[in-house]
Amino acid sequence: MSLPAIPENIVNARRSPLLVFAGQSNRPLAQAICDNLGIPLGRSKTEKFTNDNLITHYEESLREGDVFIVQTFSAPVSDSILELMLMIDAAKSASAGRVTAVIPYYSYARSDKKDSPRISIAGRLVADLLQEAGADRVLTMTLHSPQVHGFFKVPVDHLSADVVLSQHFKKCVPDAHNGVVLAPDAGSIKRASQIARRLDSGLAMIDKERLSDTEVRPRALIGDVDGKTVFIVDDEISTAGSLVETVNIARGLGAKDVYVAVTHGVYSGPAIQRIAALDVTQVASCNTVLVPPSKMEAAGGKLAVLDVAPLFANAIANIHTGASVSTLFT
Amino acid sequence: MSLPAIPENIVNARRSPLLVFAGQSNRPLAQAICDNLGIPLGRSKTEKFTNDNLITHYEESLREGDVFIVQTFSAPVSDSILELMLMIDAAKSASAGRVTAVIPYYSYARSDKKDSPRISIAGRLVADLLQEAGADRVLTMTLHSPQVHGFFKVPVDHLSADVVLSQHFKKCVPDAHNGVVLAPDAGSIKRASQIARRLDSGLAMIDKERLSDTEVRPRALIGDVDGKTVFIVDDEISTAGSLVETVNIARGLGAKDVYVAVTHGVYSGPAIQRIAALDVTQVASCNTVLVPPSKMEAAGGKLAVLDVAPLFANAIANIHTGASVSTLFT
Amino acid sequence: MSLPAIPENIVNARRSPLLVFAGQSNRPLAQAICDNLGIPLGRSKTEKFTNDNLITHYEESLREGDVFIVQTFSAPVSDSILELMLMIDAAKSASAGRVTAVIPYYSYARSDKKDSPRISIAGRLVADLLQEAGADRVLTMTLHSPQVHGFFKVPVDHLSADVVLSQHFKKCVPDAHNGVVLAPDAGSIKRASQIARRLDSGLAMIDKERLSDTEVRPRALIGDVDGKTVFIVDDEISTAGSLVETVNIARGLGAKDVYVAVTHGVYSGPAIQRIAALDVTQVASCNTVLVPPSKMEAAGGKLAVLDVAPLFANAIANIHTGASVSTLFT
Amino acid sequence: MSLPAIPENIVNARRSPLLVFAGQSNRPLAQAICDNLGIPLGRSKTEKFTNDNLITHYEESLREGDVFIVQTFSAPVSDSILELMLMIDAAKSASAGRVTAVIPYYSYARSDKKDSPRISIAGRLVADLLQEAGADRVLTMTLHSPQVHGFFKVPVDHLSADVVLSQHFKKCVPDAHNGVVLAPDAGSIKRASQIARRLDSGLAMIDKERLSDTEVRPRALIGDVDGKTVFIVDDEISTAGSLVETVNIARGLGAKDVYVAVTHGVYSGPAIQRIAALDVTQVASCNTVLVPPSKMEAAGGKLAVLDVAPLFANAIANIHTGASVSTLFT
Amino acid sequence: MSLPAIPENIVNARRSPLLVFAGQSNRPLAQAICDNLGIPLGRSKTEKFTNDNLITHYEESLREGDVFIVQTFSAPVSDSILELMLMIDAAKSASAGRVTAVIPYYSYARSDKKDSPRISIAGRLVADLLQEAGADRVLTMTLHSPQVHGFFKVPVDHLSADVVLSQHFKKCVPDAHNGVVLAPDAGSIKRASQIARRLDSGLAMIDKERLSDTEVRPRALIGDVDGKTVFIVDDEISTAGSLVETVNIARGLGAKDVYVAVTHGVYSGPAIQRIAALDVTQVASCNTVLVPPSKMEAAGGKLAVLDVAPLFANAIANIHTGASVSTLFT
Amino acid sequence: MSLPAIPENIVNARRSPLLVFAGQSNRPLAQAICDNLGIPLGRSKTEKFTNDNLITHYEESLREGDVFIVQTFSAPVSDSILELMLMIDAAKSASAGRVTAVIPYYSYARSDKKDSPRISIAGRLVADLLQEAGADRVLTMTLHSPQVHGFFKVPVDHLSADVVLSQHFKKCVPDAHNGVVLAPDAGSIKRASQIARRLDSGLAMIDKERLSDTEVRPRALIGDVDGKTVFIVDDEISTAGSLVETVNIARGLGAKDVYVAVTHGVYSGPAIQRIAALDVTQVASCNTVLVPPSKMEAAGGKLAVLDVAPLFANAIANIHTGASVSTLFT
Repeated sequence: MSLPAIPENIVNARRSPLLVFAGQSNRPLAQAICDNLGIPLGRSKTEKFTNDNLITHYEESLREGDVFIVQTFSAPVSDSILELMLMIDAAKSASAGRVTAVIPYYSYARSDKKDSPRISIAGRLVADLLQEAGADRVLTMTLHSPQVHGFFKVPVDHLSADVVLSQHFKKCVPDAHNGVVLAPDAGSIKRASQIARRLDSGLAMIDKERLSDTEVRPRALIGDVDGKTVFIVDDEISTAGSLVETVNIARGLGAKDVYVAVTHGVYSGPAIQRIAALDVTQVASCNTVLVPPSKMEAAGGKLAVLDVAPLFANAIANIHTGASVSTLFT
Repeated sequence: MSLPAIPENIVNARRSPLLVFAGQSNRPLAQAICDNLGIPLGRSKTEKFTNDNLITHYEESLREGDVFIVQTFSAPVSDSILELMLMIDAAKSASAGRVTAVIPYYSYARSDKKDSPRISIAGRLVADLLQEAGADRVLTMTLHSPQVHGFFKVPVDHLSADVVLSQHFKKCVPDAHNGVVLAPDAGSIKRASQIARRLDSGLAMIDKERLSDTEVRPRALIGDVDGKTVFIVDDEISTAGSLVETVNIARGLGAKDVYVAVTHGVYSGPAIQRIAALDVTQVASCNTVLVPPSKMEAAGGKLAVLDVAPLFANAIANIHTGASVSTLFT
Repeated sequence: MSLPAIPENIVNARRSPLLVFAGQSNRPLAQAICDNLGIPLGRSKTEKFTNDNLITHYEESLREGDVFIVQTFSAPVSDSILELMLMIDAAKSASAGRVTAVIPYYSYARSDKKDSPRISIAGRLVADLLQEAGADRVLTMTLHSPQVHGFFKVPVDHLSADVVLSQHFKKCVPDAHNGVVLAPDAGSIKRASQIARRLDSGLAMIDKERLSDTEVRPRALIGDVDGKTVFIVDDEISTAGSLVETVNIARGLGAKDVYVAVTHGVYSGPAIQRIAALDVTQVASCNTVLVPPSKMEAAGGKLAVLDVAPLFANAIANIHTGASVSTLFT
Repeated sequence: MSLPAIPENIVNARRSPLLVFAGQSNRPLAQAICDNLGIPLGRSKTEKFTNDNLITHYEESLREGDVFIVQTFSAPVSDSILELMLMIDAAKSASAGRVTAVIPYYSYARSDKKDSPRISIAGRLVADLLQEAGADRVLTMTLHSPQVHGFFKVPVDHLSADVVLSQHFKKCVPDAHNGVVLAPDAGSIKRASQIARRLDSGLAMIDKERLSDTEVRPRALIGDVDGKTVFIVDDEISTAGSLVETVNIARGLGAKDVYVAVTHGVYSGPAIQRIAALDVTQVASCNTVLVPPSKMEAAGGKLAVLDVAPLFANAIANIHTGASVSTLFT
Repeated sequence: MSLPAIPENIVNARRSPLLVFAGQSNRPLAQAICDNLGIPLGRSKTEKFTNDNLITHYEESLREGDVFIVQTFSAPVSDSILELMLMIDAAKSASAGRVTAVIPYYSYARSDKKDSPRISIAGRLVADLLQEAGADRVLTMTLHSPQVHGFFKVPVDHLSADVVLSQHFKKCVPDAHNGVVLAPDAGSIKRASQIARRLDSGLAMIDKERLSDTEVRPRALIGDVDGKTVFIVDDEISTAGSLVETVNIARGLGAKDVYVAVTHGVYSGPAIQRIAALDVTQVASCNTVLVPPSKMEAAGGKLAVLDVAPLFANAIANIHTGASVSTLFT
Repeated sequence: MSLPAIPENIVNARRSPLLVFAGQSNRPLAQAICDNLGIPLGRSKTEKFTNDNLITHYEESLREGDVFIVQTFSAPVSDSILELMLMIDAAKSASAGRVTAVIPYYSYARSDKKDSPRISIAGRLVADLLQEAGADRVLTMTLHSPQVHGFFKVPVDHLSADVVLSQHFKKCVPDAHNGVVLAPDAGSIKRASQIARRLDSGLAMIDKERLSDTEVRPRALIGDVDGKTVFIVDDEISTAGSLVETVNIARGLGAKDVYVAVTHGVYSGPAIQRIAALDVTQVASCNTVLVPPSKMEAAGGKLAVLDVAPLFANAIANIHTGASVSTLFT
């Protein structure tokens, strides 16, 4: 994957100036995107009133600007979502020409269907709310299922981290084609299959059984991992509970080395300790979610971070100049 | 699965009368639903003007009625969709109290993501159009992916045929638990896994590789079918091309008997000839799509039809009386 | 009527490029419009999945383009409408800057009022659906009644074929001012009156009586056609049943030559045979609806086609450059 | 035409109470409707603030009521429209269950098409505004053209005065079938044709020519009025300028007695003097617009008023009880 | 307050031409704004049909123009509002690129809360109607309460007359800082406080008590006016009833000279006679509402008019060129 | 204030059952409301996924229910808002008949105007989001300004705590009419004036000056507090910084006892310590916001809580039965 160079002086490429702002959730990524674009990160400030209400204030004019707001949905997630909606609304009422919500990790995408009665399909609800707040477009990466794209009525550019993940595996394991890509459950088999094709490797899956609303039990590993290097791929890791189970099953069935790579490294609760204690060579994730240095350290060198800022920067440049985003990443 | 009895005199259970109408696409199913409900099918008529435009006319009053319109999206699909929207619009402007679109086979659900650039996510578009036409609710069965539920903003009751299909297999093959449920591709692995759990059987999947927009090639069968009875399940069969391939792979790997059951039996183009020539014991589908007698015959006795009218009738009765639909089918 | 010349290099007249695409219903007209504009017809492809669902795919980038989609509502009409909506939706989600639906023959305009209870005013419904699909503007010709314009909330440019029709009559019949324009029913009297004024000729009308929903009976011819050349004008001909009746009444009352010209020549069912057998000199229609060579031939030389591609091309050029459409055609 | 009896105690026929309120434009009609319904007119008050702003106040609870607001669009029309919208909005925010705008004379219906560039199709705009204000349904009479029905997305019940007008003619002129119904222009030919069929009489029309935006000239009378009783029908009379012309042409061509009947008697500007001086037997209009006694007197006994309150009362009763309105008036 | 110079040739500053039109309510202000902008006032015409319906016609092309429509909500207010909505709708359907409603006096802003049950919050209703009619932005001055800004979903630029009013006081009374700004009621205390700070003067307020819906009684004057020059400020004067009371109370408590300045001088009913008889030095208002010469004269030299056309012109120029409006007036 | 008794068996008063649920923010209040209504609090559960996303699950059927969801906007506010929207959305898609958001403390009401450029009027945004999520009505108490009512398009019932607060003062201080109600700033003068009228007491206000976006300085106390019992009223207390200042100014000017009562006791940050150290007799607030026992204790007996559950229960009962809410509390 070699990305095209960003046009020089991109900020003036169009009459409508290119402006990139960021909420509080992942400012290092926003800064990295701006560095790739060769423009400064826009000045804005979000504070909390003493009654815990958020207020966002832009410190420069947005009139007729082509505004991109970078906000990932990491903890505290509700604050991240509200802040993004306040920023979109403020931008629109400050006469921004177009507002694109850049959401590297759209966490509510996991609520994409009604798997029990009387719940919200929150992935659709949040999509509706963002559009009600005024979002004209969305740019995101690796939605939990590709159908979530259709929850939005406004245009969505949906980036994939597949190339980044498979290039990473190839770099780590030169003979990756002898390995097996393992999907931790049926929901990730399509993603695993695509990575397997990129590595020209084998494919396997763990079949799971839902015992109750909260309890899931593995039934079987479909395929064969004995004596092989195993690549576990998924869209995200949160507490790493499922990851531990997947690694243990693979190990129990004779897997050799185990490499893990996911798009979104949430690493919540006991995740870091679990990974530190886990029999894996490495766990990699993209910088869609910020992993603080303390966690990197606590994981004992097992964590790796893959940089997707160039992908986002190129997508933003192409959206801004009206070039095709779909042809960028193949 | 034993369904509750429909309350007697359901048509007068609520002040708002229960009215069921049907488009042209599957009137036998609509009639069967009404028979289960113990009410007559509503009188309506759809004609084509000489310029090929449709006109639908209700021949009884709908004022404040609780109106259900049964229309499946089978060929000619565009006429089916247009006719349904005309019927919804006419019902609303004739002062129907509530209009539920009953769409046993929502075919555009297959267009649920952007797998190539510059296409419409038509499953979402058609959902928007139905709501714009005035649909207050939707009742449907076995959407291609469960996320399509979220394409609708109005409430959706999404029936599953899993119980019907697995009961059918158990009836056909008493020791079904020794068999293997085979998913024809990654997209149907979740459905296959659920059926496997109901049968307490094994699970396998064919991993496929997309060579181009139109060409797909099987890479491998993940799992083991050797010497086993194989149950192939899917959401629909259209030309049966993929089915032939799946059966052949299974046979080539030693599968014993092969049984097939899907929700929607579209059977288009060469499907019937292919099935007639195919080395399978039986191919079953639900009556969400009408299979004409001529096709039944041409398939040489291999086709079976499973009746889901009771499921729809119960769902309609519960929606009408405000009882829970979610607790019906477990 | 002499149209202004299209500006050279119209495709680059605006920052937003001019792009014209076509559905399947009348590609020759779309090609003729593009020829008039001096640009190639945009590359797109519509196919049917095996389950009879449509899929449309643009084969070039539309980002920020000023997109016009030409689709006439001729048989199969439901496919034409669905295809147009899919194309509009795909264009919007592919980031087209503006999408204009060019509908030379908006057939559902005939469903413009509630002439019986419990029907849809489908002309309004289809307008709503097109807007829900994302149409930003509409360009059309000779709506059945001018009020249909008001069914749309987005801007509509409504072209008239009156000049084309009356110039055609004048060319055919040099002393047209001695003739009589005959309206086949009350609904077309306004159009007939306008043509009569352009020809400086007389005017007459057939008064009809509706006996039932489907049966209409002529009561009288208001005016005088005895010994005169008669010009019958209407918005469309479908089965030609009404036309035959009109001609016969005129003949019975002493009409000399009879010329017919309508905007939309649908010619469905027995139309061609009827016209071939009819005592008229000529029946002309515009190329808003494609008349295949086989029909031209079968009509025994009585059919004429009037080219309105220059009108559409000029309207598109003016819409694209922001010039006034209203001042074009007087 | 014999209307069904209003059910006794209609106000309690439904759980949701029937409430009829009126704006300032035609309170006598509203009172007459309530008298027919056997209920009191609802208490409400509209005042003007000193800055000429309107304020409407309901003086009784509307919670969950089935509210009908009677307001005709007579001068001052803008006040009538604004007042109606304020009343609708106040009713909705006071938790009315359903609000039906009863608009006996929807005057903006005359702005139903774009007959010159850069004007508003105000009939559609006002329809949109009423719906934005919260109208759930509309009940109206004799729209200028029946297509205006389609300007509304909410259900419309569109009453006709044809029966009232033709019964009136029959009562005035026992041998009405020997007369001729004369349409003053092409726009009213359909209405005239329907009345002619009800009277079993002849039909004629005046063909007019538009010389400029404001000047229209009669070209010819199509048909024959010589020695006959002439019935002129139209949807409304405002200044009576066109009426004078029509009568004079008819007289000039030998018409015997002339009777005039229209739905909406606006009688603005010089209308009353013109009618007083006009060579007609009688000019009748319905009480959709209030004709003050002073005008009745000034017209020298030539004006007659036809009561349509029973029609409105029956329509309201049927809407309230969910009975069919369409079958009422045939 | 020194305003920046309007850029030369502002009309061509953007590809989209700047066009300013005016309704009938305050054409002198619109002309003054255009003079400040150095452009001609756009040609449009509003007439009344004989049935009292309004029709507006633009006499030049608006295609893709950046259109501003100046219309103040002065008597006849309902006509002013309807005319503005017709103009907005006509502009949109004539393909204007963007339409900004310039409403110097948004009178319905006084209906901003529910101070009695079953009324409309008309300030919000009118905002909704304007947006439904198609307004893309709003430019206004001194809303009755600043919260009314939030009644609009589209961007609003809300100009303040505070600088104009306080500069006026300073010019009239060099030692204004020794005076007291008096708020006539609690509702205007915030505005009074801001003026007091600009003058560096004292502050006082009259506390009022609502006895009934229509009757209000002063309870007390909070603060001290004895021997001081008093500056009474408010958002508007209509009948001047409240003003008379305020002045009398101030005088009764020893006030020396009394100066009055408000943004909107409505001067309805007995206002002029009351002011002529009132013991004040001067009553000033901005030209947001047109004060006819006859009133100026009748007030016996006590009225002054402050010109805010430069403020509106600068705001329009900045909106048109995408410059910040917020930084203009400090 | 004596409230009417709740009808017995209120849950079955209507065909649509009355259901009250609560989010996590103030379950004791919700329980108290249900106790007053004589019904159990509905069963629902909200959890956080490991990625910090919320999920809400109703544990009983809501089909056609008249659903009230109690959620106050106290810290963590963003979670409270998101949870409420998820609950509304889930209720609607579970076919609730009507959903009323009961928001005792609508904290974002403080963001009700644009007091600096390029911010969101968040009070309006949150109103839009709640409606987009599906709220059919809103029930709330003491909005920061009454205009916020108009930010909602759906019906709002806006309860006042004025009666509760003034009854509390009268109970504490029998000769309250000799005291002075003190408004801490211009924004609360209207509320203070209303309480003063209820107590028949004096009125005073502190005039403040904004030095910068974050710094505000008192300029003067308008009115007289010397030797008097002072009642400070406001809509809310958060850090109590402004309260301390107000008390100190009053004390410095000779105030005797000081009593404080506000609707919403947020008590964030240093509030409790400040109040404990403050020279006031008592600080009372309503239970719209939950004050935990630890805070009550830390405040050293100075805090009082006023119960408004009966007000909410009566309002809910009246909304449910369609009785007037406006006449309840006078």
